[in-house]
Amino acid sequence: MAKKGLLLVISGPSGVGKGTVCAGLLAKHPEISASLSSTTRSKRKGEVEGVHYNFITERVFQESIENAEFLEWAKVYNNYYGTRKQVVDEKISLGRDVLLEIDTVGAKHVKTHVPEAILIFIMPPNKGELARRLRGRATDSEEVIEKRLSCFEAELKEIGYYDYVVFNHNVQEAVKQVETIIQAEKSRVSYLYDDIAAMF
Amino acid sequence: MAKKGLLLVISGPSGVGKGTVCAGLLAKHPEISASLSSTTRSKRKGEVEGVHYNFITERVFQESIENAEFLEWAKVYNNYYGTRKQVVDEKISLGRDVLLEIDTVGAKHVKTHVPEAILIFIMPPNKGELARRLRGRATDSEEVIEKRLSCFEAELKEIGYYDYVVFNHNVQEAVKQVETIIQAEKSRVSYLYDDIAAMF
Repeated sequence: MAKKGLLLVISGPSGVGKGTVCAGLLAKHPEISASLSSTTRSKRKGEVEGVHYNFITERVFQESIENAEFLEWAKVYNNYYGTRKQVVDEKISLGRDVLLEIDTVGAKHVKTHVPEAILIFIMPPNKGELARRLRGRATDSEEVIEKRLSCFEAELKEIGYYDYVVFNHNVQEAVKQVETIIQAEKSRVSYLYDDIAAMF
Repeated sequence: MAKKGLLLVISGPSGVGKGTVCAGLLAKHPEISASLSSTTRSKRKGEVEGVHYNFITERVFQESIENAEFLEWAKVYNNYYGTRKQVVDEKISLGRDVLLEIDTVGAKHVKTHVPEAILIFIMPPNKGELARRLRGRATDSEEVIEKRLSCFEAELKEIGYYDYVVFNHNVQEAVKQVETIIQAEKSRVSYLYDDIAAMF
């Protein structure tokens, strides 16, 4: 049996820069597979179908929920987001590490159903900086931004679901810290157990 | 309240080079405190009282056992080894990371009594290499070496007590991997929880 890959879940509040951290990690590590999420939200400028998301209709999404095809799904700010179980399972069984970039609701779902998933919370240096980044992104109304900021308070209360916290002072440092976590996880007895049993 | 330090336990079979890995780690990280073990065994060439061990008599050791002064103690190959609880607790409360280099019997004791201790098993590249290192050390009779090698089999069966495994192909790489583990542990939610609560 091939060694299973790691299921890495990178999450955190809206605007913290988790997408940028994931992109930085994937650029340095082509051996890590990004899992493609499905969503019903509309495409943002520059986003490409099949690369950034599977953009699907609410009807298709609902059918997939009914058929239990999602590892996690959530309705966030009136849009649905989900990760198809099959895609993730296949890659992990083949020994590939899979990276999920999902919101905190989805991350909690994954940890509940896949306890061996490694949950990393990307943390803003402080709350003011998070507000600054959300406003700088200029994709949301002030009302939505306020909603996202108050969500952050609630998200922090659930940080106990996570394994690790990485402060995103700057992207390079945050990516390095995620790399460190992956390297350490690959030294875990649970990860190496079969190799050791086979060697000795 | 000051942030508590980590309790790092480096263990593994006799002859694997755990002492060298610890020395390498401490040389690069003067901020890590080496815990001084007490032992009743006789000094080896080059060993210094108060630096490598507290060399004490069996009578003093027995008294300390009776007074429950040890975090762990064990009789290995007719000698006693132990770590005084007070010394470790004091340093950790002051926020210092403490490194224990102990045999596998002691490591299991520590994990049982201090579940948050981080147990690292230093692994030889293979069994033949372990035998070669034990013979190269030339401190033990062939009979003792055989005894140590058969112990290794038993030690492997208890690897489930450990958090991490580090293969000691060469010292620099092994030290680097321990550093990676320490860095990752310092990103754990459990380690950062109080900081995050204070910040937000």
